[in-house]
Amino acid sequence: MIVVMKAKSTKQEKDEVLKRIRELGYKPHVIHGETRDVIGAIGDERGKMVLQSLESMHGVENVVPILQPYKLASRELRKETSVVRITDEVSIGGKNITIMAGPCSVESERQIIESAVAVKEGGAHILRGGAFKPRTSPYSFQGLEEDGLKLLAKARELTGLPVVTEVINPETADLVAEYADILQIGARNSQNFALLKKVGQLRKPVLLKRGMSMTIQEFLMSAEYVMSEGNDAVILCERGIRTFETATRNTLDLSAIPVLQVKTHLPVIVDPSHGTGNHHYVAPMSFAAVAAGADGLIVEVHPDPENASSDGPQSLKPAKFKEMMEKLKLFAEAAGRETE
Amino acid sequence: MIVVMKAKSTKQEKDEVLKRIRELGYKPHVIHGETRDVIGAIGDERGKMVLQSLESMHGVENVVPILQPYKLASRELRKETSVVRITDEVSIGGKNITIMAGPCSVESERQIIESAVAVKEGGAHILRGGAFKPRTSPYSFQGLEEDGLKLLAKARELTGLPVVTEVINPETADLVAEYADILQIGARNSQNFALLKKVGQLRKPVLLKRGMSMTIQEFLMSAEYVMSEGNDAVILCERGIRTFETATRNTLDLSAIPVLQVKTHLPVIVDPSHGTGNHHYVAPMSFAAVAAGADGLIVEVHPDPENASSDGPQSLKPAKFKEMMEKLKLFAEAAGRETE
Amino acid sequence: MIVVMKAKSTKQEKDEVLKRIRELGYKPHVIHGETRDVIGAIGDERGKMVLQSLESMHGVENVVPILQPYKLASRELRKETSVVRITDEVSIGGKNITIMAGPCSVESERQIIESAVAVKEGGAHILRGGAFKPRTSPYSFQGLEEDGLKLLAKARELTGLPVVTEVINPETADLVAEYADILQIGARNSQNFALLKKVGQLRKPVLLKRGMSMTIQEFLMSAEYVMSEGNDAVILCERGIRTFETATRNTLDLSAIPVLQVKTHLPVIVDPSHGTGNHHYVAPMSFAAVAAGADGLIVEVHPDPENASSDGPQSLKPAKFKEMMEKLKLFAEAAGRETE
Amino acid sequence: MIVVMKAKSTKQEKDEVLKRIRELGYKPHVIHGETRDVIGAIGDERGKMVLQSLESMHGVENVVPILQPYKLASRELRKETSVVRITDEVSIGGKNITIMAGPCSVESERQIIESAVAVKEGGAHILRGGAFKPRTSPYSFQGLEEDGLKLLAKARELTGLPVVTEVINPETADLVAEYADILQIGARNSQNFALLKKVGQLRKPVLLKRGMSMTIQEFLMSAEYVMSEGNDAVILCERGIRTFETATRNTLDLSAIPVLQVKTHLPVIVDPSHGTGNHHYVAPMSFAAVAAGADGLIVEVHPDPENASSDGPQSLKPAKFKEMMEKLKLFAEAAGRETE
Repeated sequence: MIVVMKAKSTKQEKDEVLKRIRELGYKPHVIHGETRDVIGAIGDERGKMVLQSLESMHGVENVVPILQPYKLASRELRKETSVVRITDEVSIGGKNITIMAGPCSVESERQIIESAVAVKEGGAHILRGGAFKPRTSPYSFQGLEEDGLKLLAKARELTGLPVVTEVINPETADLVAEYADILQIGARNSQNFALLKKVGQLRKPVLLKRGMSMTIQEFLMSAEYVMSEGNDAVILCERGIRTFETATRNTLDLSAIPVLQVKTHLPVIVDPSHGTGNHHYVAPMSFAAVAAGADGLIVEVHPDPENASSDGPQSLKPAKFKEMMEKLKLFAEAAGRETE
Repeated sequence: MIVVMKAKSTKQEKDEVLKRIRELGYKPHVIHGETRDVIGAIGDERGKMVLQSLESMHGVENVVPILQPYKLASRELRKETSVVRITDEVSIGGKNITIMAGPCSVESERQIIESAVAVKEGGAHILRGGAFKPRTSPYSFQGLEEDGLKLLAKARELTGLPVVTEVINPETADLVAEYADILQIGARNSQNFALLKKVGQLRKPVLLKRGMSMTIQEFLMSAEYVMSEGNDAVILCERGIRTFETATRNTLDLSAIPVLQVKTHLPVIVDPSHGTGNHHYVAPMSFAAVAAGADGLIVEVHPDPENASSDGPQSLKPAKFKEMMEKLKLFAEAAGRETE
Repeated sequence: MIVVMKAKSTKQEKDEVLKRIRELGYKPHVIHGETRDVIGAIGDERGKMVLQSLESMHGVENVVPILQPYKLASRELRKETSVVRITDEVSIGGKNITIMAGPCSVESERQIIESAVAVKEGGAHILRGGAFKPRTSPYSFQGLEEDGLKLLAKARELTGLPVVTEVINPETADLVAEYADILQIGARNSQNFALLKKVGQLRKPVLLKRGMSMTIQEFLMSAEYVMSEGNDAVILCERGIRTFETATRNTLDLSAIPVLQVKTHLPVIVDPSHGTGNHHYVAPMSFAAVAAGADGLIVEVHPDPENASSDGPQSLKPAKFKEMMEKLKLFAEAAGRETE
Repeated sequence: MIVVMKAKSTKQEKDEVLKRIRELGYKPHVIHGETRDVIGAIGDERGKMVLQSLESMHGVENVVPILQPYKLASRELRKETSVVRITDEVSIGGKNITIMAGPCSVESERQIIESAVAVKEGGAHILRGGAFKPRTSPYSFQGLEEDGLKLLAKARELTGLPVVTEVINPETADLVAEYADILQIGARNSQNFALLKKVGQLRKPVLLKRGMSMTIQEFLMSAEYVMSEGNDAVILCERGIRTFETATRNTLDLSAIPVLQVKTHLPVIVDPSHGTGNHHYVAPMSFAAVAAGADGLIVEVHPDPENASSDGPQSLKPAKFKEMMEKLKLFAEAAGRETE
């Protein structure tokens, strides 16, 4: 932490700040500038958030943090990208580009089986599908709940594809974990700390979506919540942030990929379906995500988007998905990756 | 809903859209424009979200909603502003400007009692204080939990001030409701739908904070979640939205007050402490909130901000709070309101 | 400037940075931290932007500026709020709340005269009206240009109200300055540096609007452009920033008022018409602006908004303006100000 | 346009709206809904902006535009992507991915010649370099002006690379056009309509950068300004938008590429240097831009970034640029494009 003093701070004010820094267990170090002094506080940076309270002291202009407040998620802790193992065949973060695909919601046995077969045929490695649905309106379809989980398990049995599905509260997390291979935390729950702690205690990989107005630093702090409970198998997912632009549902922030690769060892995937909200833009943004270095994609595919009970406009039809996967192969190769 | 067809859509494409609108239970009405056709879908607007899926159909340019999707929260349903009763003496939404004040977190018996006495003395009507704290970092202070609730109850007993405190997950909601007079839903949980449903089932007033990247329409949909479970006692709280500006912690959107007054009958209060993140800006923004028509304020006051375990920089000292309350009276009068 | 070194930077890398800091004319000062070193660069802060280039050096994590880069606009330079004198009777920044009002565009002699008489009658001190109009579409009305300026002069002659009007390029700035009492720089030109320099060379007060995505620091840098050419008579105008919220045309950032009061001595006014885009919200946001400490307002008033050639939806009718001004008086008094 | 009436609008209010629509030259068409009426206004959509003023009428809830307000820039006008020809060898918008590269500012003869030779050697087709620099601070380097233009011409002569450079005001536009092959309009001038009109009258291709808070629709309206003056040779450039995220200088909105490809026939390039502000992120975002369908890139390359007078941290060294270009070739091929 660097404490910047006001230009006209008094000696007494400076002394109070020095004293308080020492009380908090840090070693102060003063730099006398031409117009003002700045004070460095030396010691373990991670617990230094408490130093922020020095901003309330007389004579202090502001307090500037130097280090990032996450530790377990940090690239400094671990140099190689973590590979999150899902099954013997499927993992995320290695040479392979891992593709998760399927409908927004599980709607019926026929729909999810048809979807699972189609996405497998198209080249997906993991089946996605929501059983518990967080919807903006209380009057919208809220998911089939446990029945939906059972249908996902059936689709897995049939196709061999592991399953990723969303968990929306701590109370039903154990239930979801019985059925799912990956527990998804949605964007709206990305700072639901009670839920993050709960999935941190479970022994299943976690797919953590970035919140709509979450900085990359906050995103990593949410990953840190899961990891600090003992669960290291966290997969980060960029899915678009909220900006002033309305031509797309969200603004897909692909620069988050290289930024995250510098800051963390966790693998990063991209959701081009929620990121754009429009099936026309899913293929180009999938190619771009892989080119930017993503370790995988999560894509909405529905056999009949016009009759989908949620997210129809952003879902690909199976034939379009297959066509996209064929082109994606070329971009994966250009990136030195594979899609098998 | 208005379905806008592409300039070159075919007759067959239009017929398919008309057929689908009828299947969904609406009556289509075509307007033939000079360059393209638009189709109105007539029927109960509230369930029309499903019509959005028509965007997936061939020949459709886009689908434009006409009505707002909330009902119980709507000003159309109820013309007068709702008055939410807390105790025999205290309510929110009437002629009085209701002031909630206290520390960010309950830290100790001495701290919360001292705070309660000070804010009562300064003119507050309700005591605030967090027992369960949602913190961005897992390494920050997470609150005293049930012990904190007990201390709040003790402070209430001593001062007579009712208590507002945050509930952070469905599992502990009943516990919080045993102690609190108002259940606060924080900004990060504003779309935690499982939690919204849970507090909708309890019989305590709910203080719902706007999410950091929440549109006003989404804010009202979250209120609708609580209300649709049978709890009408919802108080909305504007607490700043996330923008590119970094001079303040958030950007306090005071125009949300008159916008909400047009759209909903629910009372609206403002949190200038989180809205600005800096105690220097709390008083002017409090005055502005009252001038813009707010029904109340929630303000962070701490006897010793420099040693606060959270949010020190944005907390007022008791003397400053009292000074602010005296000036606030003048603005309340200018607005035709009272602060007694 | 504080240069933060990487955790694993080598001694040679540090030496290179120290050498470069000295070459640029600053004195380096090293703080040895537990996990990394930080280096302070001591010397005149204003020219330090060049130090930002150290981010390109090996071993450097990032460079953190300590001071604000403006000087003439800074409150440190001048403790009292500057009073910008317009005429013998009218000035901005003193005890009085100064009101500028009138139509978005000058449309005809009858319209501007009628507007001028009405806003004077309502209590305005300055007449606004656009002769050169920057419009998003090339097919929209672009203003009456010099004819519009002449009509403004006629309205001034008749009512005695000084005139504020927009200047949109350096070529026509001298022409506008012949007629106008205050030169307005619009939000879209707030970083048109060629134009800022030009009005800095003229001897007329400048009303500088904040750009739609301009930070407060950039806003003050634009003021600094005008002032660095010798023109100190700058009035800042908050007019709403662009955010994700679409219920209002922009998000009026009233917290910019107290922030600016800390950082600069320049007077600050507010434009509630562009800030909200809706005449229903103009009165409450005007009251809030005054309560937050604004030195004045600029408000769109039109005798016939339904037939206005621009900005009809956000213009007040004269009767509504008069009604608002009467209530505004009460808020001005609460703020210890006057509106005479 | 669709005019949505309030639920309780009276017959007289509706009649007034119908009358006004007819007066403005449109044909009204009423749809009677269950809770409210909506009125379509049929006629040439382009001039309909004036209909927006109907929002001021009694009984009107809001006015919803159906069509986009641009015409010349629209994909409806012209189905194939426009190819903008620069020289006999170089054009933008065809099969080739066109690369513009060079320093932010022209600093000296040696620097620009060295840069030009290096970027040509690396595979660039066009040399970039600023002679007139729009800088946030009046105290920053403002460019070599005409001397810089002469040095660019010298570099062109030596290498054969055509030159793109920025024009910052109408007064110096003719001078820049004497030297430049492409006239660049910077992000801060993207709604400087006087400047847009001026370059629309010149007969040189225009590289138009998206403003920091510009919607895609506004971006196309700015292109329309240039085109409506007779200059069709417009190249659009996505360069990042301003959001809450601070880990990158801007948020590069790559989804703008497929969105623009649907809406306009103009070619689209990407600026990954300003888009990210950090040379580490330039290569991955360049690859992603090409994968998303961009027609070209504009990249900052400097022989000595640590001593650059502007934008050092985001500039590539020549060796890194060459390395990037070699990989870019693979992504271009995957996209069915070439980089020769």
